[in-house]
Amino acid sequence: MKKIALDAKTASSRVALLSTDQKNAALLTMAQSLTAAASKVLSANRLDVKDARKKNIPQAMIARLSLDVPKLAKIASSVESIAKLPDPVGRVLWERMRPNGLLIRKMSVPLGVILIIYESRPNVTADCMALCLKSGNCVLLKGGSEALRTNQALFEVLSGGAASAGVPKGAFQLVTTSDRAAVKSLLMMEDLIDVVIPRGGEGLIREVAKTSRIPVIKHYKGVCHVYVDEAADLAKAEKIVLNAKTQNPSVCNAMECLLVHERVAKKFLPVLARALAQKKVEIRGDAKTRQWVPGAKPASEKDWGTEFLDLVLAVRVVKDLEEALGHIARYGSRHSDAIVTENAEHAERFTGSVDSSAVFVNASTRFNDGGEFGMGAEMGISTDKLHARGPMGLEELTSYKYVVLGDGQVRA
Amino acid sequence: MKKIALDAKTASSRVALLSTDQKNAALLTMAQSLTAAASKVLSANRLDVKDARKKNIPQAMIARLSLDVPKLAKIASSVESIAKLPDPVGRVLWERMRPNGLLIRKMSVPLGVILIIYESRPNVTADCMALCLKSGNCVLLKGGSEALRTNQALFEVLSGGAASAGVPKGAFQLVTTSDRAAVKSLLMMEDLIDVVIPRGGEGLIREVAKTSRIPVIKHYKGVCHVYVDEAADLAKAEKIVLNAKTQNPSVCNAMECLLVHERVAKKFLPVLARALAQKKVEIRGDAKTRQWVPGAKPASEKDWGTEFLDLVLAVRVVKDLEEALGHIARYGSRHSDAIVTENAEHAERFTGSVDSSAVFVNASTRFNDGGEFGMGAEMGISTDKLHARGPMGLEELTSYKYVVLGDGQVRA
Repeated sequence: MKKIALDAKTASSRVALLSTDQKNAALLTMAQSLTAAASKVLSANRLDVKDARKKNIPQAMIARLSLDVPKLAKIASSVESIAKLPDPVGRVLWERMRPNGLLIRKMSVPLGVILIIYESRPNVTADCMALCLKSGNCVLLKGGSEALRTNQALFEVLSGGAASAGVPKGAFQLVTTSDRAAVKSLLMMEDLIDVVIPRGGEGLIREVAKTSRIPVIKHYKGVCHVYVDEAADLAKAEKIVLNAKTQNPSVCNAMECLLVHERVAKKFLPVLARALAQKKVEIRGDAKTRQWVPGAKPASEKDWGTEFLDLVLAVRVVKDLEEALGHIARYGSRHSDAIVTENAEHAERFTGSVDSSAVFVNASTRFNDGGEFGMGAEMGISTDKLHARGPMGLEELTSYKYVVLGDGQVRA
Repeated sequence: MKKIALDAKTASSRVALLSTDQKNAALLTMAQSLTAAASKVLSANRLDVKDARKKNIPQAMIARLSLDVPKLAKIASSVESIAKLPDPVGRVLWERMRPNGLLIRKMSVPLGVILIIYESRPNVTADCMALCLKSGNCVLLKGGSEALRTNQALFEVLSGGAASAGVPKGAFQLVTTSDRAAVKSLLMMEDLIDVVIPRGGEGLIREVAKTSRIPVIKHYKGVCHVYVDEAADLAKAEKIVLNAKTQNPSVCNAMECLLVHERVAKKFLPVLARALAQKKVEIRGDAKTRQWVPGAKPASEKDWGTEFLDLVLAVRVVKDLEEALGHIARYGSRHSDAIVTENAEHAERFTGSVDSSAVFVNASTRFNDGGEFGMGAEMGISTDKLHARGPMGLEELTSYKYVVLGDGQVRA
């Protein structure tokens, strides 16, 4: 483990100085290598999938693990698309001439060495390698053991492509052991590794956050709310609620809880309930909700604050905006929350008060996404408040340093 | 402990929404209260100093602990000056209209609740209260037990002033216990506290970083280098070395190690050694240095990478820029490093390669400071790469959120 981290650390100063052209050329070569070696990757993946079936791994996990020709083409095209994004390194964030003649430049620089710990999905291997290279970082990849052969094949093909395009050896490291103590030892190497990004279930992320001496950027869960205000346009509200709940219920920016102002509940809830029923959404409501939606199940205390990731929706009728804000503060996860209202003051009170990575007015929570925000590919969505919050794109994989140009200045 | 943290968390949503005028008015009231209650603070301080003397606490620590009328006036004027700085909250960091009509604004927001753990110096109490209030944060203050009565008096006076100006109760909390287990329990409250900033010796900071579940922004130490290149203007080099070493040797941005290109060593070192001798600086040199400075002590391996914080300087002759870069990468602390050169390519190689919070060309390392960078007051200098690097001013005490304004948009 120590050698892997040390090799990455050693390579990091050279990777940081690769030019934009070098990095983009390497990314294109990596994408080509992947296309050329598709059969190698797919055979490795077949073995992983076969073993996963034997081990009775849940079907959803097997689906995430499985690759085919179109999925592999998508992975290659994602690597290619990262070549087209602007280089996040070397930006002048600000520049200031001081009265003493010192020119101070705040410049973006790579973070250094990034450790990614993730579960099953093999596309994460390729995405992380591409995003880290483009941002001038070295990366240690620790994928799930169920995807080991797939990740090994992807890693060999992609790092081979990168090496042939001049990327220093050591820029990419695959951690192949599944020994927990070995992985834990990596989390202690604060002198060699700059950041840890765990991607996967809440259990994995909490475990990493608890153990790590290295700073962690994390995303626990998305318990996203939509609040339908008394001043809502109810047609917009219905469209937004349906989209936020059903367009892709298994993702972190999908809505889990609907809050409805009591003045519009009578008019809004019965219509909405019919539309949700067509989409097979199960409603769990408080007493006031069930008054207007008789078929709804009663919501338990546990339903508030639960990330269902499924066609289940908790619904509560609130007496006003303040009660909605209180509910979100208590049960939300600081991820994405929306208000539907035509009242500008209410909208402002909501966006000012809700402490989440993205706060929406009259739009679906599903838009909290790097691509939708115009940032290009993303490493995930951070629910932390330090360093990166919300979608983590290439810029969020950089730090900065001050470059100060003088002519012999000394401090008085 | 739990109640203190919960009170801060509860207050944080209201403190975050204070207007710039409210915050500035409160800061001015706080400064006035301090001036009015000077005798109360000074008597409390006298008791702390008396006890410290009894306990044979080192003289340097007693000096840091002791207050007098001019020092107190300086503390009040520092609080006042923070009222004059721009409000770091509510800035639009960027704004983007997406093709679907969504307006995305990245807005600066307070971090939330900040825990500061610090040693003796009572001015930290006032500075942190002022900086946290101005940045819309709530703060938990855990000062050193040797300054407890002073901190209590300062806290009562300042929080009384703030409360009379309308700052919500709970915005400031003083942790008065010196029970280590109680303080440790605070470091576990990741749901209530957003950031921990330890200020003090390396031991304290390592202990906090090791224990905390909450993200920590830290500064371990400053082992700052000046490299005098073969293309240096030697008059500038002498001036910079003298300033970086002797202007204030006890601070983190003072120089600890000088690297000299072998082609200029013969000419530069004897002249420099005479100037350093006048300032009573002890030189610890490698063999080549001692060739030109016969009076120098031999440097041991331990001297490279040591933060002397004293009139001691490690000196090494290197064969070229690359060897200097290698030395800094191995022994430096990522704080502040400088090159003296008239060669633009060498300067660029140095600023590109040295991985420190601030990298200087032809200027003293002593300029790595919030005030000198035009940022106003600072919370310290971070040697981390995540979130804040280098001087931590008001902007570094903020996070951001995305505020997205739509008109019924849903995701396709």
